Amino acid sequence: MARATLKDVAAAAGVSVSTASRALADNPAIAPATRDRVRACAADLDYQPNAQARALRSSRTSIIGLTVPSLVNPFFATMAHVIQQEASRHGLSTIISSTAEDPAQLATSLGTLASQQVDGILAVPYNGSDDAFTRLPMPVVLVDRELPDAGLPTIASDPRPGIDAAVAHLLERGHHHIGYLSGPMTTSTGVGRLAAFEEACGRHGVDKREIHHGGFDRAEGHQGTLDLLDRGVEAIIAGDSMMSVGALEACHARQVAIGRDLALIGFDDNSTMRLQASPVTVIDQNVADLGTRALHLLIDLMSGTSPPPAPTTPTTLIIRPSSDFTRRRHHRD
Amino acid sequence: MARATLKDVAAAAGVSVSTASRALADNPAIAPATRDRVRACAADLDYQPNAQARALRSSRTSIIGLTVPSLVNPFFATMAHVIQQEASRHGLSTIISSTAEDPAQLATSLGTLASQQVDGILAVPYNGSDDAFTRLPMPVVLVDRELPDAGLPTIASDPRPGIDAAVAHLLERGHHHIGYLSGPMTTSTGVGRLAAFEEACGRHGVDKREIHHGGFDRAEGHQGTLDLLDRGVEAIIAGDSMMSVGALEACHARQVAIGRDLALIGFDDNSTMRLQASPVTVIDQNVADLGTRALHLLIDLMSGTSPPPAPTTPTTLIIRPSSDFTRRRHHRD
Repeated sequence: MARATLKDVAAAAGVSVSTASRALADNPAIAPATRDRVRACAADLDYQPNAQARALRSSRTSIIGLTVPSLVNPFFATMAHVIQQEASRHGLSTIISSTAEDPAQLATSLGTLASQQVDGILAVPYNGSDDAFTRLPMPVVLVDRELPDAGLPTIASDPRPGIDAAVAHLLERGHHHIGYLSGPMTTSTGVGRLAAFEEACGRHGVDKREIHHGGFDRAEGHQGTLDLLDRGVEAIIAGDSMMSVGALEACHARQVAIGRDLALIGFDDNSTMRLQASPVTVIDQNVADLGTRALHLLIDLMSGTSPPPAPTTPTTLIIRPSSDFTRRRHHRD
Repeated sequence: MARATLKDVAAAAGVSVSTASRALADNPAIAPATRDRVRACAADLDYQPNAQARALRSSRTSIIGLTVPSLVNPFFATMAHVIQQEASRHGLSTIISSTAEDPAQLATSLGTLASQQVDGILAVPYNGSDDAFTRLPMPVVLVDRELPDAGLPTIASDPRPGIDAAVAHLLERGHHHIGYLSGPMTTSTGVGRLAAFEEACGRHGVDKREIHHGGFDRAEGHQGTLDLLDRGVEAIIAGDSMMSVGALEACHARQVAIGRDLALIGFDDNSTMRLQASPVTVIDQNVADLGTRALHLLIDLMSGTSPPPAPTTPTTLIIRPSSDFTRRRHHRD
């Protein structure tokens, strides 16, 4: 007969797997009566927790901490949602702290999570914030952004495949004058995506390109788009989801017809990009994969196992009408 | 001469107000050197904390907890952002837990926050979740949704003014057959908004109305919109922000021209609603006001002061092209 699982115990006790796990871990959030019922069912079924579950049981709080740079950025909102739901399936609670795209707030957030004795931390760092991580006694996994000198395990996406495909696609459709809304140089993603854009322009021979140095912020995307339009670009690639929304705002405000006057490519897929008269082509990061892999790596570290180094997730290009039109040239420059 | 404030101490020590507050409160997240520098500056300036600050200083963690029903719902994302930023200005850190629109997860989230000994909790409850609040030893303020029998202080908006104005506006423009996407009856907002819609229909004499009983979820809004369109409605009012996005999805998928074939009114203002070919009329809740007032009420309770009962925030109607067109009748029914 198959060995009883935590799911069997939970079913027998009439509680969720999460509650059963926490009851067996003696988590104070579970009422004593529930705890005793779960334990009785576990004994009846001769339930034997596996090694990972034993390691998790010996942890102090069954809580993990997550810092995100923004709560209103749909990319990080989705990442937090994915991590929290997957953690719940593993009997872990998640507490989230926002650092508001402000490097100074990261140290405060990490200090708060550490003082709460969480069992592990998932963090989206800023360049130069290495020091904030040095005094943390629990396992840490970086997600989305890297800190090359910190020596911390990291789950991030590779911007190059998606950005390279975006530039090739624009040229193929006749959009030769390309503007790029760059993120801040205080983040590895801002730096890495700009480098990927420059690299792709070099590889594909784009000779007319414009860079607007912005930030991961709607207002920056809005202002940068007006700036790039004034410089006469035929296409714009936005370097993150917030600037993508700002670019849409600017085009609506100035009545620029996306998919006819301007080819627009956003970063990260979300409903705002899809629900346009001319749905927006995006460079997609597969946020569900990023969040899930980061959580699983953290759980491995919390269980004391040494997982193999994780490869990056490639970005992909999702082509939609905002850029998928051919620009006819009336004259050569 | 004016008395030195916490801001003056922070400026003298070259740290943020948040850091200064936590340094004076002996919060372990602050490095000892920083703490000593802040204290020296406070002594130099003869800084005297006021009563509220003294009460906060004696609290245990300088952390508040917040439960939200969803991280991907832009209404709650904005609320969490507003609360976290305002808490930071008061020297408090915020830890956030999502309950994923699942009443069963609320008890777990509250248990987690309680086990973390936060100084106070802001929570968005579900109907029937009264029990989950009975064993909490710290001040609690409910926000957005009510629990009439729990006797807890609550900051919520009044759906009636906005919904009444929406129905009156639709009739005035000639949209007489009105569909409503209702939220779940497991929330006070779902119940209250449906009642407000029924009341407005009665008051203004709407004789053709259709109700779709959905949930606070994009897929429900999508399915419900298809259902209401099949029933021949001329106008749709969505009962929350997630169903508003779902309604947009359904209209895009079925190529229904919003602002010409269908009058659409969403709930809660956000960029997806504004960035449409036909920008969407919304019933707005003033989320910044809700979040700020809930936090200030919690801080008052944490400081031991008894604030006056808080009035509700009225909803308002923001009219945009999605509904602001006149329907001509070719024949009378």
